[in-house]
Amino acid sequence: MQIIKNEIMSKATAAKQASVKLANLPTGVKNEALLKMADALEARSKEILFANGLDVDAAKARGTRASYIDRLTLNEKRITDMAEGLRQTAELPDPVGNTDFSVVRPNGLKIRRVKVPFGVIGIIYEARPNVTVDAAALCLKSGNACVLRGGSEAIRSNKKIVEVLQAAATDAGIPDHAIEFIDIIDRDAVIVMCKMRGLIDVIIPRGGAGLISRVVENASVPVIETGTGVCHIFVDKSADFDMAINIAVNAKTSRPSVCNAMETLLIHRDIAVDFLPLVKKALEDKGVELRGCDRCLKICPDMIPATEEDWSTEYGDLILSVKIVDNVDAAIEHINHYNTQHSDSIITKDAHNATQFQWEVDSAAVFVNASTRFTDGFEFGFGAEIGISTQKLHARGPMGLEALTTTKYLINGNGQIR
Amino acid sequence: MQIIKNEIMSKATAAKQASVKLANLPTGVKNEALLKMADALEARSKEILFANGLDVDAAKARGTRASYIDRLTLNEKRITDMAEGLRQTAELPDPVGNTDFSVVRPNGLKIRRVKVPFGVIGIIYEARPNVTVDAAALCLKSGNACVLRGGSEAIRSNKKIVEVLQAAATDAGIPDHAIEFIDIIDRDAVIVMCKMRGLIDVIIPRGGAGLISRVVENASVPVIETGTGVCHIFVDKSADFDMAINIAVNAKTSRPSVCNAMETLLIHRDIAVDFLPLVKKALEDKGVELRGCDRCLKICPDMIPATEEDWSTEYGDLILSVKIVDNVDAAIEHINHYNTQHSDSIITKDAHNATQFQWEVDSAAVFVNASTRFTDGFEFGFGAEIGISTQKLHARGPMGLEALTTTKYLINGNGQIR
Repeated sequence: MQIIKNEIMSKATAAKQASVKLANLPTGVKNEALLKMADALEARSKEILFANGLDVDAAKARGTRASYIDRLTLNEKRITDMAEGLRQTAELPDPVGNTDFSVVRPNGLKIRRVKVPFGVIGIIYEARPNVTVDAAALCLKSGNACVLRGGSEAIRSNKKIVEVLQAAATDAGIPDHAIEFIDIIDRDAVIVMCKMRGLIDVIIPRGGAGLISRVVENASVPVIETGTGVCHIFVDKSADFDMAINIAVNAKTSRPSVCNAMETLLIHRDIAVDFLPLVKKALEDKGVELRGCDRCLKICPDMIPATEEDWSTEYGDLILSVKIVDNVDAAIEHINHYNTQHSDSIITKDAHNATQFQWEVDSAAVFVNASTRFTDGFEFGFGAEIGISTQKLHARGPMGLEALTTTKYLINGNGQIR
Repeated sequence: MQIIKNEIMSKATAAKQASVKLANLPTGVKNEALLKMADALEARSKEILFANGLDVDAAKARGTRASYIDRLTLNEKRITDMAEGLRQTAELPDPVGNTDFSVVRPNGLKIRRVKVPFGVIGIIYEARPNVTVDAAALCLKSGNACVLRGGSEAIRSNKKIVEVLQAAATDAGIPDHAIEFIDIIDRDAVIVMCKMRGLIDVIIPRGGAGLISRVVENASVPVIETGTGVCHIFVDKSADFDMAINIAVNAKTSRPSVCNAMETLLIHRDIAVDFLPLVKKALEDKGVELRGCDRCLKICPDMIPATEEDWSTEYGDLILSVKIVDNVDAAIEHINHYNTQHSDSIITKDAHNATQFQWEVDSAAVFVNASTRFTDGFEFGFGAEIGISTQKLHARGPMGLEALTTTKYLINGNGQIR
């Protein structure tokens, strides 16, 4: 444990030192570095693919399932995509230095609040090597140093990618150690990172519920939780059936493994007899398994009965729980009880119900007549996404570059005393 | 421990239920309640003073020191002041519902981000009973339920105050349990509160370093740290001596016990021979004990030598550490090494040094030619202050009503799918 601690502390200290200079670098220098990092990824793709091949072989030898191997595997196309991501990040506006509040006080003090980088951001993630590139790019553009800790399965790929990115960044005038990578496989590394108060300013975990809760339970560094989504769609009495079916199918089946996919469909009792069989057929045609409440089973006796556990399960798969509710109040109550405060949607023609739903459902994103799948930094127009915050502190919902900044007050006087 | 847990969970659950209705109450209802709470405090002052008398007697019997007894003691004037605080909170603009971002996307989705209450705010504090009133008022105005846990010394006063506030609030249409108070003296109560994930949305500790770190180390609920301030003033080579002395005396002596008081004075080496004796005399005339670095001692051999520990000590008293530094870079380096990221000031006529200092010192508030004592919600014009955040997540520096809100995205479509 002490060796792990020393190793991580030395990297976090180096990142902290780099962060001071990095925080005040001109936007042009950061953009130039991002472009050089993109070029370097492509120029050194052979090295990256070789390292990745070792990870893939090891995963296959462990008998890892195919979908997982697919996410881990890089090829020239995926490296080009990562490089394109870097180039797009260079195009984004730089939030650092923006003033978001200013006032001149009666005593003459000029007060303004400006956006500044956090300093050092710790990112703990799993599986896919492209997260390494994304995270490094967004931290750099927002003037932050980063300490990255990727999953052990991709450790060779990640180490090589970071080596390539670091070298290119340093060439372009970025301080050494602005991008640090923890290459310790031991899970204790996560615990140790989460306690680096004073060196790491914020930790963002990206991954499954197990990782997130291990970080939250152990962290003394402030954490931004991302992640799990038990998203709901409520089909109100006045809903347009075609629209509701279209949205339900999209929200469940367009990409069932992601956090903004629908997991529970709520249906107003007054339309259930007509609507349930229609939506059931449309979803079953796409291969979805439906698990229904008692009232659903009375209408469609062939449905699998839902258990209490179903209402709080993020299936991440072609499975959907379905419940018939009395009205919009009951829908809101169900959602606020079972959801993970991610994304929920109402399909309705009733403006009053729409408004009540939006204000009373306690989630990061509340939709009217649209698919929950739109909760995404790119879909919101941020041009980037470091994750989707499901907590209420600091950032909620999709996090773009601005979520990677904090603020400071600059106050100018001419001798004022209190 | 289980009894404590059950008790706190039941109060937090009640607060959570209240928070749903509270979040969407019209501003007028909240303001009316604040005014009735103010009236009730004054109308029932005898009951409050009686309960407070019991706390004061118990503190005296324990041999508590006089300054502490003074902070604990209420009288008619102090109750009137608390009532005035409630009335002033009613006058403040309500942040809930404000839109801080909006966009219409190419696919027609209308996205806006609005300010909403957190839900339930836990506030853990020490000593003074007026914090109970302040905290309850600011949480209510921002649409949040609160779970308060005050110091054991003021427990009878706090219980009575909360009883009076709750009754008046309920009369005015605020949901029951919007203001909950934990009357468990056992310190485990703090630990238990900090782990109420899903019931308490954020914890704000207000008190000494011991309380803050106990909360941070144990919390799984997100925390906003407030508090400790090792504040610096750097007197640059070009400083106006009169202004610098005036500000140094104000920052150290106007209220030495508070977190925005100066603890370390840094002096540019080129002016030290002339400036140090002058500022020393001015401070000593106010009863300040100066502890100097080696270079200070060469100029003023009668100074007490500062130890390494002095540079990171928040004296909260009429003691000051003094260090001579080579230039603005050395001043910034010293500050970023030893400070608590609270408030620091440069006294200079050099615009370049002022700018460098403001952007490179990593603190919540960085001043030019003004006293650090201005870091305060009222001085910044917020009309209120729940504390001064010394962390970077969510809120930094003085926190007014807006810091007690989070955001949510409301997205309106007409059938969009992805």
